[in-house]
Amino acid sequence: MTGQFATGQVAAQVHIPPMPARSAGYDVVIRAGVLDELAPHAAATGAARYVIIADDNVSRLFGEAARASLQQAGLVTDLVAFPAGEAHKTRETWQRLGDRMLALGCGRDSCIIALGGGVTGDLAGFVAATFMRGVPFLQVPTTLLAMIDASVGGKTGVDTAAGKNLIGAFHAPTVVLADPRVLNTLPSRELRSGLAEAIKHGAILDAEYLAWIEEAGPALRRGDEASLEHLVRRSVEIKAGVVAEDPLEHGRRAILNFGHTVGHALEQLSAYDIPHGFAVGIGMVVEASIGEVLGITAGDVRQQLARVLRLLELPAAPGAVLAPQLFQAMLLDKKARRARPRAVLLSATGSVAPTNDGGWTHEVSEDVLAEALHSTLSGSRFV
Amino acid sequence: MTGQFATGQVAAQVHIPPMPARSAGYDVVIRAGVLDELAPHAAATGAARYVIIADDNVSRLFGEAARASLQQAGLVTDLVAFPAGEAHKTRETWQRLGDRMLALGCGRDSCIIALGGGVTGDLAGFVAATFMRGVPFLQVPTTLLAMIDASVGGKTGVDTAAGKNLIGAFHAPTVVLADPRVLNTLPSRELRSGLAEAIKHGAILDAEYLAWIEEAGPALRRGDEASLEHLVRRSVEIKAGVVAEDPLEHGRRAILNFGHTVGHALEQLSAYDIPHGFAVGIGMVVEASIGEVLGITAGDVRQQLARVLRLLELPAAPGAVLAPQLFQAMLLDKKARRARPRAVLLSATGSVAPTNDGGWTHEVSEDVLAEALHSTLSGSRFV
Repeated sequence: MTGQFATGQVAAQVHIPPMPARSAGYDVVIRAGVLDELAPHAAATGAARYVIIADDNVSRLFGEAARASLQQAGLVTDLVAFPAGEAHKTRETWQRLGDRMLALGCGRDSCIIALGGGVTGDLAGFVAATFMRGVPFLQVPTTLLAMIDASVGGKTGVDTAAGKNLIGAFHAPTVVLADPRVLNTLPSRELRSGLAEAIKHGAILDAEYLAWIEEAGPALRRGDEASLEHLVRRSVEIKAGVVAEDPLEHGRRAILNFGHTVGHALEQLSAYDIPHGFAVGIGMVVEASIGEVLGITAGDVRQQLARVLRLLELPAAPGAVLAPQLFQAMLLDKKARRARPRAVLLSATGSVAPTNDGGWTHEVSEDVLAEALHSTLSGSRFV
Repeated sequence: MTGQFATGQVAAQVHIPPMPARSAGYDVVIRAGVLDELAPHAAATGAARYVIIADDNVSRLFGEAARASLQQAGLVTDLVAFPAGEAHKTRETWQRLGDRMLALGCGRDSCIIALGGGVTGDLAGFVAATFMRGVPFLQVPTTLLAMIDASVGGKTGVDTAAGKNLIGAFHAPTVVLADPRVLNTLPSRELRSGLAEAIKHGAILDAEYLAWIEEAGPALRRGDEASLEHLVRRSVEIKAGVVAEDPLEHGRRAILNFGHTVGHALEQLSAYDIPHGFAVGIGMVVEASIGEVLGITAGDVRQQLARVLRLLELPAAPGAVLAPQLFQAMLLDKKARRARPRAVLLSATGSVAPTNDGGWTHEVSEDVLAEALHSTLSGSRFV
C-alpha cells in the first residue's frame, strides 16, 4: 500500500441511501368546471415552460383553448399532438414526442400537461417520466375511464407487439383535474366503457355504491353532471384506497383486476375492436360464473352484475367464443403462473375472496372456464 | 341527485399518497475477487430469471463466465449483447434490449445484470427502469470510471441526437459489485480516463486524497490491485457523500461537475474522439485557470492538477482550441443560463467556491475564458 491511507481506513462497502420520494402525493380534483382552472394549477409547478400533449382529436376539441388559457396567464406553452388511438401508444410515438420537446428547447424545468384519455395519460406520463430523467406533469383526463382509472396510481407506459403496457414507469402526476363537464362531449360508447369500471369498483369493495349506480343508471346514461361527478369521486376514492395500501402492486392491488383476466383476453381475441370497458363488463360476468363453478361466488352476484350492465347499455355476456381460445388468450395475462391463468373472484357483491394462502387471485383450469362460459352463454338468454 | 349518496358525502378532491421509496438504498461492494460472488448476490434478489446485458467486447471477456456462474447456482440466466460504444447508447438499442427480454419471456420477476462500463450501466439501467415499469438490476462495472462515477447516484439513460443522457430515469441498482481485479484487463487509456475522475474527487473535496493519488501515482499506473481498490473505495465514498446530500441534483451535487463544463465542450468539439476522463482532466486545468482569472482560485491549484495529471500520463492542457469555439460548445452544457456557460470553481484544492447567492456554479464570460485559455496554453510549456 502506498501513501498515507491504509486500506482498512475506508469501508469495504459503501452504502448509498435511497432516493427520497419525488412528491408528497397529489390531489385528484373532481369538479364540474375545474378545467377552467388549468392555468393556475400549471403555474403552481413553477416550471419555466409547458407542453400540452394531446391526441389530434382532443387537440382539436380542447387543445387550443387550453394553450390559450395558459398563454393568457403568461406561461410559455406549446401544444403537441399525436395520432389518436391505442395503436399509437408506442415507443415510436414516445420517442417522437421527446424529440419534439428537445427541438422546442425544453429543459429540466419544463412541465407536461397530459390532456386526453387513458392512452394520452399513459403515453405523455411516460414522456414526463423519462424526459431529462423526469419532469413534472399534470393529468387532465377527458374520458370517464381515464378519470376513474388511469388518473390514480402513477402508472405510465406504452404497448409493444408483445402486449399492453409492457414498457413504462411509475411516475405520479402533480395534480389531476377531472372535469365531469367534458364527459358530455364523449361518444356514448366511451362513456359506457367508463361506467363498466365504476361497476367494478362497487363490485369489489362497495355493495352500496353498486346499488347506487343501478339506481342512478338512467341519470348516468343521459350524462347528468351531478351524478357523473358523484360517480367519479366515489370511484377515485375506492381506487385510491386500494392503491394506497399497495402502491407498487405486490399484493392486494390485484383486486382491481376483477373482470380483467377474461376482459383482456376478449380484447385480445377481438384485436382490440371491443372497447376496454365493454370487455371488462363481460369479463366480470364470466369471472362471477367461474366463482360460482368453484363454489366461491354467491349465485346472485352474476345476476346483479348482468342487470346493472344491461341497464347501462353494456354487453353482459360474451359473443361466440370457445373456451380453448379464451383459455389460451387468458394465459397472456400478467397474473398467469405455471401455465394457468388466474382471476380475482368475489365471494359476494362488495367482497373479494382471498385464497387459502392469503393471495388475491385464483387459478382457473380450462374445464372450469368451459363450464363457466357455458352457463354464462345459456344464462344470458334468461337474466 | 339520485340514490342514497348525497354529493357532499364524498370529498371534492381525493388525495393520493406518495409512492414509497422502492429500495432501502444499496451497497457498493469494493473488493478484489468480488466478481466471483455474483451468483449469490443475484440470487438474493429472489428473481425468477436473470438477464446479463453487456456490450459485445465485455460479453466476450466476462459474459460467458458470468452466465455460467449463475447457471451453476441454479439461476435461469440469459446473456444479451449489444454493439460496444457510446454511439449505441440510444433509444433504439434500449428498445431492442426490451424486445429481446420480452421474446425470452421475461416478466416482472426478472432481474437485469448490467455488466460493463458506463454505457452499459446507463443503458441496461434504463432498460431495468422501464421494463414492466421497473425490475431490479445489479451493476457490475468493469471500468474504473464506471466504478467510481456511474455506480453511484441511480442515474440511468440514453443519448439522443440533441445531446447526452437527455432521456432516462433515476433507478437505483440493488447492489454494485466493483472488482478492481477486472481493471487490469482494461486498455491503458480506459484506466487513465477513470483516474482523472478520481483526481476530481480529491480536487473538490479532499486535498489529502489528491496528495495520496499523487504519491500512489506510479503504483496506480502499473495497475497495483491494492492501490486501485483504495482509490475506488475513497472515490465512491466521496461521491456517495455528495449524492446523499442532494440525490435529485437540485443544488450542491453540481460540484461533481468540476472540470465538466469545459470537459464536455472539448468532447463535443472532438466529436467524442477524446475519452471522457481526458477531457475532464484538461477541463479541470482550464477551469482552475478561469478561477484564477476571476480571483477565486488559488494559483497553486492549477499547477498541482497539471502535475498529477501528467504523472498519470493524462493530458493537462487543451490542444489548439479557440476561445469562441469553446465558448459556444460550453453553452450546450445543462448548467448554462441566460446564454452564459457556468462552471464549478475551486477556492483551493479540496474546496469548492460557493457563489455569493449560495449557488455552486459561476458564470463564465467569453473574455474570461479567452484569458484563462491563453494562460493555460502558454503555461503548459512550463509547468
